[in-house]
Amino acid sequence: MNIRITLPDGAVKEVPQGISALDIARMISEGLARNVLAARVNGKVQDAALPLNEDAELQLLTWNDTDGKKTFWHSSAHLLAEALEALYPGIKLGIGPPIDNGFYYDIDFGDYKFSSEDFAKVEAKMTELAKQENTFLRSEVAKADAIAYFTEKNDPYKLELIQDLADGEITFYQQGNFTDLCRGPHIPNTGFIKAIKILNTAGAYWRGSEKNKQLTRVYAITFPKRAELDEHLQMLEEARKRDHRKLGKDLEIFTFDDDVGPGLPLWLPNGAQMIETLETFAKKTEKEAGYQRVKSPHIAKESMYLKSGHLPYYAESMFPPMELDGERYYLKAMNCPHHHKIFAAQQHSYKDLPLRYAEYGTCYRYEQSGELFGLMRVRSLTMNDAHIYCTEAQFEQEFMAVNALYLKYFKVFGIEKYVMRFSKHDPAKLGQKYMNMPEKWQKTEEMVRKVLVSSGIPFVEVEDEAAFYGPKIDIQIWSAIGREFTLATNQVDFAQAERFDLYFTNEKSEKERPLIIHRAPLSTHERFIGFLLEHYAGNFPVWLAPRQVVVLPISDKYMDYAQSLCGFLKKYDIRAFVDERAEKAGKKIRDAEVAKIPYMLIVGEKEAGSGEVSVRKHGGTDLGSMNQLAFAELIQAETEI
Amino acid sequence: MNIRITLPDGAVKEVPQGISALDIARMISEGLARNVLAARVNGKVQDAALPLNEDAELQLLTWNDTDGKKTFWHSSAHLLAEALEALYPGIKLGIGPPIDNGFYYDIDFGDYKFSSEDFAKVEAKMTELAKQENTFLRSEVAKADAIAYFTEKNDPYKLELIQDLADGEITFYQQGNFTDLCRGPHIPNTGFIKAIKILNTAGAYWRGSEKNKQLTRVYAITFPKRAELDEHLQMLEEARKRDHRKLGKDLEIFTFDDDVGPGLPLWLPNGAQMIETLETFAKKTEKEAGYQRVKSPHIAKESMYLKSGHLPYYAESMFPPMELDGERYYLKAMNCPHHHKIFAAQQHSYKDLPLRYAEYGTCYRYEQSGELFGLMRVRSLTMNDAHIYCTEAQFEQEFMAVNALYLKYFKVFGIEKYVMRFSKHDPAKLGQKYMNMPEKWQKTEEMVRKVLVSSGIPFVEVEDEAAFYGPKIDIQIWSAIGREFTLATNQVDFAQAERFDLYFTNEKSEKERPLIIHRAPLSTHERFIGFLLEHYAGNFPVWLAPRQVVVLPISDKYMDYAQSLCGFLKKYDIRAFVDERAEKAGKKIRDAEVAKIPYMLIVGEKEAGSGEVSVRKHGGTDLGSMNQLAFAELIQAETEI
Repeated sequence: MNIRITLPDGAVKEVPQGISALDIARMISEGLARNVLAARVNGKVQDAALPLNEDAELQLLTWNDTDGKKTFWHSSAHLLAEALEALYPGIKLGIGPPIDNGFYYDIDFGDYKFSSEDFAKVEAKMTELAKQENTFLRSEVAKADAIAYFTEKNDPYKLELIQDLADGEITFYQQGNFTDLCRGPHIPNTGFIKAIKILNTAGAYWRGSEKNKQLTRVYAITFPKRAELDEHLQMLEEARKRDHRKLGKDLEIFTFDDDVGPGLPLWLPNGAQMIETLETFAKKTEKEAGYQRVKSPHIAKESMYLKSGHLPYYAESMFPPMELDGERYYLKAMNCPHHHKIFAAQQHSYKDLPLRYAEYGTCYRYEQSGELFGLMRVRSLTMNDAHIYCTEAQFEQEFMAVNALYLKYFKVFGIEKYVMRFSKHDPAKLGQKYMNMPEKWQKTEEMVRKVLVSSGIPFVEVEDEAAFYGPKIDIQIWSAIGREFTLATNQVDFAQAERFDLYFTNEKSEKERPLIIHRAPLSTHERFIGFLLEHYAGNFPVWLAPRQVVVLPISDKYMDYAQSLCGFLKKYDIRAFVDERAEKAGKKIRDAEVAKIPYMLIVGEKEAGSGEVSVRKHGGTDLGSMNQLAFAELIQAETEI
Repeated sequence: MNIRITLPDGAVKEVPQGISALDIARMISEGLARNVLAARVNGKVQDAALPLNEDAELQLLTWNDTDGKKTFWHSSAHLLAEALEALYPGIKLGIGPPIDNGFYYDIDFGDYKFSSEDFAKVEAKMTELAKQENTFLRSEVAKADAIAYFTEKNDPYKLELIQDLADGEITFYQQGNFTDLCRGPHIPNTGFIKAIKILNTAGAYWRGSEKNKQLTRVYAITFPKRAELDEHLQMLEEARKRDHRKLGKDLEIFTFDDDVGPGLPLWLPNGAQMIETLETFAKKTEKEAGYQRVKSPHIAKESMYLKSGHLPYYAESMFPPMELDGERYYLKAMNCPHHHKIFAAQQHSYKDLPLRYAEYGTCYRYEQSGELFGLMRVRSLTMNDAHIYCTEAQFEQEFMAVNALYLKYFKVFGIEKYVMRFSKHDPAKLGQKYMNMPEKWQKTEEMVRKVLVSSGIPFVEVEDEAAFYGPKIDIQIWSAIGREFTLATNQVDFAQAERFDLYFTNEKSEKERPLIIHRAPLSTHERFIGFLLEHYAGNFPVWLAPRQVVVLPISDKYMDYAQSLCGFLKKYDIRAFVDERAEKAGKKIRDAEVAKIPYMLIVGEKEAGSGEVSVRKHGGTDLGSMNQLAFAELIQAETEI
């Protein structure tokens, strides 16, 4: 019997029942087959080797697909475990998932202290096992058999995991001499893994709880080609130099303090200046785009979050409540409910719409202390937030305008690689995972797709990852050194208007619910400044540099001229200061280079006499002498964005 | 035997021991004696009739002294109680203190529903009793006797109060047929009270606790002259029209919401625009004055506030803690500790000082829900905060500059009446109520006085009201209709540097503690915008008006021209909008008047044809026709401050 397989380009293949995705790849070309890592069958990712028994939509996943990469790294984690078991008999295995860049496996090494000295040996063993081209074999296992297997193997962590699984849904995967409890999917065989690097280790509590034993998390990364590994390691090296935590300290951008608390950055004057510059820019841009600003407190009563639906489901990501006058108050973890309340405080007619409420609102979210990371994972987040309340007829144009804003910002900040991940609902889960409003889903998803296509922004569509209340777009960007950042999430929302009883009076004088767009193109100050530090390696363009010009008198004799020069520049809104220290000129220049200040004005007898300035750019370029006004105009030209 | 009495002007009078302050007033003039309400003897306010037995510094207090007024109103509260007891036998009395404008008495009327219909009768009775010129007689009473008296009188509230008092410190005051438990002081006799007005009533829990019975709080005010009462009532009437809560609603400035919580204003677009305007102005002014901006989170760990000393003493004014990862976090009630941490995060030499860290920081303070009042008493406060870290040598100049900033702001906002209340320490309480650093106190108080005198700001000196860590200045201002507002507090601080181990390296390369000045000239957004609403009656000057210009097309035909005109004005940063509603021109003009928008541009056939604008000012003045550019320039000229 034949089945019909539809490929992503719409082509339909009639093939015998029981054939695998890998077989179909081979029918297309042997070259393709050598690159197929997994298959997406009717939206679900599975082993490429599994038989296909029904008509299906099929996508062959390679290294170029996120899910292909994930499968590759997941299989690599099994390979790592196999190598570790071979080298360190008696170790106990936790879990080993893929992550954004590579994978890890949590290992209980018993008394052995696994360290970087072991890395080369493990890499060699993994390479040896990979060369065996062992197939990843999938088997369905009864719960009792699964328990028996890991009891026999004496692996308590796996046994604990099995306890939580239902009989009938347990699968094992085996490659070579190694068998793991695993849902899959996996790549066809270990031979695909050509380049291997163990990166580092860290402590990790079993199941994330401090009450449990601390295991050793072994991080690694693998690639299908040697050259890709080399490129990745080079990028990591560059990223280390550009580490926003190091630069943030060197450039005096932010700090943390034990008495304030982890994940709660304090912004030093340079950081506060960057925030000011970003906010001024965003406010101007948003004003031109017809946004209005609002301002809301950082707390609200429990009833607000019960209404919004964040409580009880989202409680773990929120700070715990404060009990006051017999009520519970929560720090806000998002600005939307407050904005909805502002919308609700006034009467609106369709003529007032769209209303675009913008606020740089500071939210507080609970992240486990182990998850905190510089400015990237924090507990206080100041968001470039806005909510657009519009009619269905206005939605397309509004959403288009939001995308245009993204493109504008990408250009301003020199972000050349970006992609939008368009998460859609699954019609089968209406009324459960998704609001049961099929028409709204269909309409808004169509509109979103239309806007994405027509705005020319690269995007991928992802099934079954929408928010509860509407389709969602995650914006992924790449820094100058090719590291990926998730910038922000845009969401379409047709549920909150109902929950908050928001309405406008339509042309027929009837009450109608607005559609709401949540957007935050410049992300949070924390994440965006963290990104910018890496992206520019701290060498900010002049308009963004917290300190734009340093005046360096080569001796105290020229201090008066230095001060008057600085005063002159300030009149042009140039952020200049005088290095008043009693240091040699060479030392002052070196320090200004370390501080990455775009321009240095060296002031000595000649300059003080002529009233001119000698201009040196960060990095060493000497622009020679010019008069003060010419320099001020040069800076002003560079600060126009 | 004679004693030596020193008067405020330095004159010394030799008088017989046992003479009273009132007697001394009579020695000066009968006219003065008729106005003496109380006496300040060696810094302590007491009855003017009490005998003076030792050498003393004496100040005779009249209606022109705050403490004179307070004594007058306190005595008036007794008179109110006497009248109420006479009219409603069997009522039980709570407490009856003076307040900023008048006084109240908390009364348990039993089953009787006391209402505004009773007011005239009470006023008449009070007037009758006042005319009796009954002396306020002070007596010291043993605790047992005090208990016996109020047991006999069957007054449970007074009995409860007596329980908390130590034997030997209980005094009664009696006038006419009325005796009250009271510490005093009081005016000589009831005859001083010439004009009486019962203002209103409110519910008030006994001792402020919701667990207790709700009493009736009767508010009233009295004056020594009829004319003063009339003037006051007229001011109240004007204040009612200018009530910031009413104007805040009419002008769409702010709102409150039950799900957000009491005392937590949400700023509507117009309010957020005012905040933006004020912040832009303050930031520019502060930048020119050499301030740097910083930014800090809204929470900190308990350890921070134990270090600052706010915990445990200030805990009742703070929001309750959040328990997180085994630590307690508090919403910040002030920005200083965060700023100190920012100061501590970097090394500073004397050459870096003064450092001036400014932040519009939002703080959270617990106020009992009964105390909340519009924007004036709130739970979230966004402060125009800054902390100046300086050397002792720099203090005078820094403090002078802060005062200059106040004067600049007073001028900008048309604040013509203001006074600074300079609170000093009491040397006798060093080491208890005040930091035991006598030299620092002496030096800083002298410097503060010197600056106040030389800057020409009117000020009064108050003994024994300084902060724990340094002298303090309360800034009192009067609105256009003569209502008093406490704008902000400036503080000198020589203690926090020690607590937070803040230091700079001085010229001798030694560690030295900086002096810290706390200042907030523009108060909080909440209080200041509340003040501005009343001060301007909502008719803001153009630069401050959230909406500056409304374009009123007299029919839809002229909508295109209206929109292009509006677009033209926006290019000049003028906050203009088009009234797009399908209403008649008359209605649009009336609504713009209610919204107090400074300028209306009426657009009809003539304007659309000529490309000009017809300008109408708020209030009705017709400025006639002019071209668009001329109008834009007119507005720009008005927005320069």
